[in-house]
Amino acid sequence: MIGGRRPLPGRKIADRRVRVARPHAPYFRYTGPGQLVAKKAASRPLTPTGRLVAKAKAVLIGRPLMSEEEIGERLPKKKALAIFSSDAISSSAYATEEILRILIVAGVSALALSVEVALAIAVLLAVVSFSYRQVCRAYPSGGGAYVVARENLAPVFGLIAAAALLIDYVMTVAVSTASAIQQIQSVVPEAFNYRIEIAFVSIALITIGNLRGLRESGNIFAVPTYLFVGLALLIVGTGIVRIIQGTAVPLPPQPQALVPGGEALTVFLLLRAFAGGSVALTGVEAIANGVPAFKPPESKNAANTMTAMAVLLGVLFVGITIVARAYQIVPSVDGSGGPTVIALVAGAAFGLGTPLFVAFQAATALILFLAANTSFNAFPRLAAILAVDGYMPRQFSFRGDRLAYSWGIVLLAGIAFALLYLFDGDTHALIPLYSVGVFVTFTLSQAGMVRHWFRVRESGWRWRSAVNGLGGVMTLVVLVVVASVKFADGAWLVVVLIPIQVGMFLFIYRQYAATARQLAIRPDLVVPLPHREERVVIPIQTLNRAVVQAINVGRSISDDVRAVFISDDPEEAEELRRRWEQQVPGVPLVIVESPYRALAGPFLAYLEVLDRAWPPDKEAPITFVVLPEYVARNWWERILYNQAVRRLRSVLLGRPHTVVVNVPYRREEPEVFEQALAADPTDQA
Amino acid sequence: MIGGRRPLPGRKIADRRVRVARPHAPYFRYTGPGQLVAKKAASRPLTPTGRLVAKAKAVLIGRPLMSEEEIGERLPKKKALAIFSSDAISSSAYATEEILRILIVAGVSALALSVEVALAIAVLLAVVSFSYRQVCRAYPSGGGAYVVARENLAPVFGLIAAAALLIDYVMTVAVSTASAIQQIQSVVPEAFNYRIEIAFVSIALITIGNLRGLRESGNIFAVPTYLFVGLALLIVGTGIVRIIQGTAVPLPPQPQALVPGGEALTVFLLLRAFAGGSVALTGVEAIANGVPAFKPPESKNAANTMTAMAVLLGVLFVGITIVARAYQIVPSVDGSGGPTVIALVAGAAFGLGTPLFVAFQAATALILFLAANTSFNAFPRLAAILAVDGYMPRQFSFRGDRLAYSWGIVLLAGIAFALLYLFDGDTHALIPLYSVGVFVTFTLSQAGMVRHWFRVRESGWRWRSAVNGLGGVMTLVVLVVVASVKFADGAWLVVVLIPIQVGMFLFIYRQYAATARQLAIRPDLVVPLPHREERVVIPIQTLNRAVVQAINVGRSISDDVRAVFISDDPEEAEELRRRWEQQVPGVPLVIVESPYRALAGPFLAYLEVLDRAWPPDKEAPITFVVLPEYVARNWWERILYNQAVRRLRSVLLGRPHTVVVNVPYRREEPEVFEQALAADPTDQA
Repeated sequence: MIGGRRPLPGRKIADRRVRVARPHAPYFRYTGPGQLVAKKAASRPLTPTGRLVAKAKAVLIGRPLMSEEEIGERLPKKKALAIFSSDAISSSAYATEEILRILIVAGVSALALSVEVALAIAVLLAVVSFSYRQVCRAYPSGGGAYVVARENLAPVFGLIAAAALLIDYVMTVAVSTASAIQQIQSVVPEAFNYRIEIAFVSIALITIGNLRGLRESGNIFAVPTYLFVGLALLIVGTGIVRIIQGTAVPLPPQPQALVPGGEALTVFLLLRAFAGGSVALTGVEAIANGVPAFKPPESKNAANTMTAMAVLLGVLFVGITIVARAYQIVPSVDGSGGPTVIALVAGAAFGLGTPLFVAFQAATALILFLAANTSFNAFPRLAAILAVDGYMPRQFSFRGDRLAYSWGIVLLAGIAFALLYLFDGDTHALIPLYSVGVFVTFTLSQAGMVRHWFRVRESGWRWRSAVNGLGGVMTLVVLVVVASVKFADGAWLVVVLIPIQVGMFLFIYRQYAATARQLAIRPDLVVPLPHREERVVIPIQTLNRAVVQAINVGRSISDDVRAVFISDDPEEAEELRRRWEQQVPGVPLVIVESPYRALAGPFLAYLEVLDRAWPPDKEAPITFVVLPEYVARNWWERILYNQAVRRLRSVLLGRPHTVVVNVPYRREEPEVFEQALAADPTDQA
Repeated sequence: MIGGRRPLPGRKIADRRVRVARPHAPYFRYTGPGQLVAKKAASRPLTPTGRLVAKAKAVLIGRPLMSEEEIGERLPKKKALAIFSSDAISSSAYATEEILRILIVAGVSALALSVEVALAIAVLLAVVSFSYRQVCRAYPSGGGAYVVARENLAPVFGLIAAAALLIDYVMTVAVSTASAIQQIQSVVPEAFNYRIEIAFVSIALITIGNLRGLRESGNIFAVPTYLFVGLALLIVGTGIVRIIQGTAVPLPPQPQALVPGGEALTVFLLLRAFAGGSVALTGVEAIANGVPAFKPPESKNAANTMTAMAVLLGVLFVGITIVARAYQIVPSVDGSGGPTVIALVAGAAFGLGTPLFVAFQAATALILFLAANTSFNAFPRLAAILAVDGYMPRQFSFRGDRLAYSWGIVLLAGIAFALLYLFDGDTHALIPLYSVGVFVTFTLSQAGMVRHWFRVRESGWRWRSAVNGLGGVMTLVVLVVVASVKFADGAWLVVVLIPIQVGMFLFIYRQYAATARQLAIRPDLVVPLPHREERVVIPIQTLNRAVVQAINVGRSISDDVRAVFISDDPEEAEELRRRWEQQVPGVPLVIVESPYRALAGPFLAYLEVLDRAWPPDKEAPITFVVLPEYVARNWWERILYNQAVRRLRSVLLGRPHTVVVNVPYRREEPEVFEQALAADPTDQA
């Protein structure tokens, strides 16, 4: 609010503005001189079609939310655990299987080592989640690895982290959806044949859900997450009791089981199994990125949720692996449509086909779909942060009606579905692309935190930086292991993609920065506003109401108005001139014969001639080209009208000192100031 | 040229216009007051990119032609025969096969009747071509069945004929291309596997050829047509000599030959054979449609060319059928990739694999590609006539650089290739869609001619109308036969499509007519041009050169200029206001806080408020909304810029009394009148 705004020196404009700014309109609250706050009605669509679209949108994605309502969207811990942890916890549905798939090539006996591998990964999980607790505390504003790396290391590391995170989010959607469908197919084998269709429908539903906004997410998603956790704990518990009782005996291999190989059990194989199983850690960072979505005190709530999540994930992952080893479960052949390892584990505990088994598989599929949903929260947020910082196109920072970043949501859904389609919905084929990005993020984030503690040196900074340092070194080692042992399986793609993405970020940044620099004006300069001369040129094709309206607009701009008729038919041109001179005597008509039948070329050339005829000592005037443009009411009118106008506009937009004026015309409603001309209905000019 | 144009009463405008219209510019010849004729330079592109595109276009489709050069494009008879007859004559490459395919279901002995069926079709050909000679004479301006039926029967019959013709042209391209590829595959069987790729390349080449224009067509295409006719006559001659000598003995069936069936030889079967073979008549109407392309005397030359074509076609078709019968040739199984009947006939005459055989197959493939080319002449011409008459979107009457109707050419190529793709390049599957349209055209055209003779009653009108009447009745009978016996094979599609197309024509006509009627102004009215009040509103997002330029343009339009800043961040808004009041003191800034973050809605609402504040006794002013628009230099700049502008423009275009002004800005070249503001490069506003 500006208190001492000096009154503009007795200008007509100023008077008018003041008079205009105070109407008791339903649209605005008046909060100061030249300062309005839009009410809800101001965002209401003005046309019948617009209102219809808005109504359909309201049904599909809910009523619009105001910015101030955002605080009401904050999540209590239990809901936040459901939303932000579904990604991490759901990894337990496929991480064990990834370990077994590698070990089986060294024979059934090698499967015994799966628990040791899982325990190693659980140790890594403990270190990483402990490191991330500190991120939650140090960065209550969220932003995760991108912000941490950018602020503590260098902008380019922030961008690397951002690129890795974006890839990670896309992969979360693809892998979780694929795995969810494999869980369904473990119960209903026919689903295998419809996996792409199911993937499409599920991603579409998640997309619509997210365009509706955050709050619904919490409500819809809490139940299945806790159902999965509960049932999975029951399976692990049952299994361990049976192991202690000695009743957990190896099952006979199922029909689609992989044939055990005869390779030697090398360290390299163990490393590969570790790299495969480390997919269990994906999604751990989600809570640190989403701190501002927690209820206050945000940092503390987020850190505690992080610990709860890590404990749950560790117990489930190791427990499932122990049970799988006890029953000597062997994964199915890839692409055979056979059951998943976790389904076999559940079958061993509950009995295949029992209601509990079916319920668990349903809960597993649901939590995996919810894991995909985690990315639908995170991806658009990160894209919007990048867009605000100038690293992504600006439209990613536009907000849709429901405080959701619609552009990011739709882009994420599109890429993820494309990946599922290309990899034919195969979880196992997608996973090598998954882990690399995750560990890049982890490493950069921990490295950034070490620098952070060294800079702030608050109490306990030494042990805090040691924790993050340990986490950073461990995740770096894992990153190198994962990238090298899975390089040929697809990890190379991520290694290539990250620099490409960073290049794109920098390219976009430089574009916007260069434009802003070129367009900048010195902040101390009082802008001179000379009144330039202007002329109006109106290309016409006939004489009708639309043309008369264009002339009217042209005369409002300048006294120097002329119409130009480009024709390849001299007789038609003569006929038009005759009519023109009788009906529009005040406006000169120039006829340009165009034997080459081109329209744009001769018109541009005519403008050139006008400019050259201007006295060289005088500054050339602004040329206003007035183009009548039909207001198309539907798609076929867009085909039937405005083709010539579109061609002209696109060539004129590049011309210096030239301004294009679009005067709309429609069929039914003659402009008020046109009614005097209202057509004689028998005349078809 | 207007001689006694009264001088405009001493207005500034008029002086300026006269001064401006006489510059010794390189672009125009000055032919009268306010009358210019564009020279070639006027159509020259003005930007470097434009020049590059034009150069590429010149290489690909040749230099631009002037309208006056069109007469030089007229065709002598021999070239015209090659261009307009390739469609009809090339039918002999597949018509015999269509007869044999039907008869074979009644066993090998039934093949003997093929010659009788062919002769019946030849009689029909004689009548139809004789009827069409009269069309050439009566309608020297061309236009064929559409014009004849429209003028003599009723507009709707003209549209039915036009719909049938358009379908016919598309089918010609599809069938001829498919058959051409089958001819190639008769020599090189591997080509069968690449038939879709070959189809794509050939249609693309023909499309480019036609975008180059008509003259080249004649030069490129005359040689293969005459080569085909010469070699085919040689085959027929050789065959008939051998039949007379008694050395033409039945060949053993080739490996992919159809297994003869055991059905009875019914009249229905004979009718089906006749319907199949009647595809030989397709393309006969092409000459009548193309009369204006002939050298003068157009009608006589066209009529004589018509007769020459009919004789050649008749001789080849019947001759090939006779030779095929003598050698007892059996068609290949559909989709087996086996040789065509005409290839087997040529093999029997020249010996399979001999140089003459290969040359003939090459010539056959070439003439079939040229047949496709016939449609590339006819389809865009007819579409342009329909567009000028208001039955098709106007852009079909735009002309490209080479006097060719680019839109029609590209549309035809697209649909024809789509058909080939959908029918998997199978000639035989496409043919049932082909003949129905042709006979609809024939019937309507002959019926129209009967009415024509009754109206004009010039010498010989009785026998002339009798000839056309006979033709009309015969083609109507054939139409009914073809449509019914081939209905289930695909003819139903055409029966459905024709009314749909006619409906579309009428719909488009009514749209344009209604618009013209609504926009018409009484021809006796001298248009009043009141000088309306105007106001300028400029939505802004920051303060930079682009905004200053927009303000400059706005002040050229009106003194009432205000900027509107829509923001969801009050602090940012205050900051901008501070800067604005210091740097642009003459222009009021209105800040609209938009808690819903929408842009378009609050802006429209603000305009509404402005309108309501206007005194109700005064006419509301025109609102000029000035939008700075970035001139994108490539595709990625189109993604990075102008998103918000596009959204605003599309909502504003529907608002009454509102005019959108697009002020272009670019990065590198500050507008001359902006240089005073040139940015301090260290300032990144």
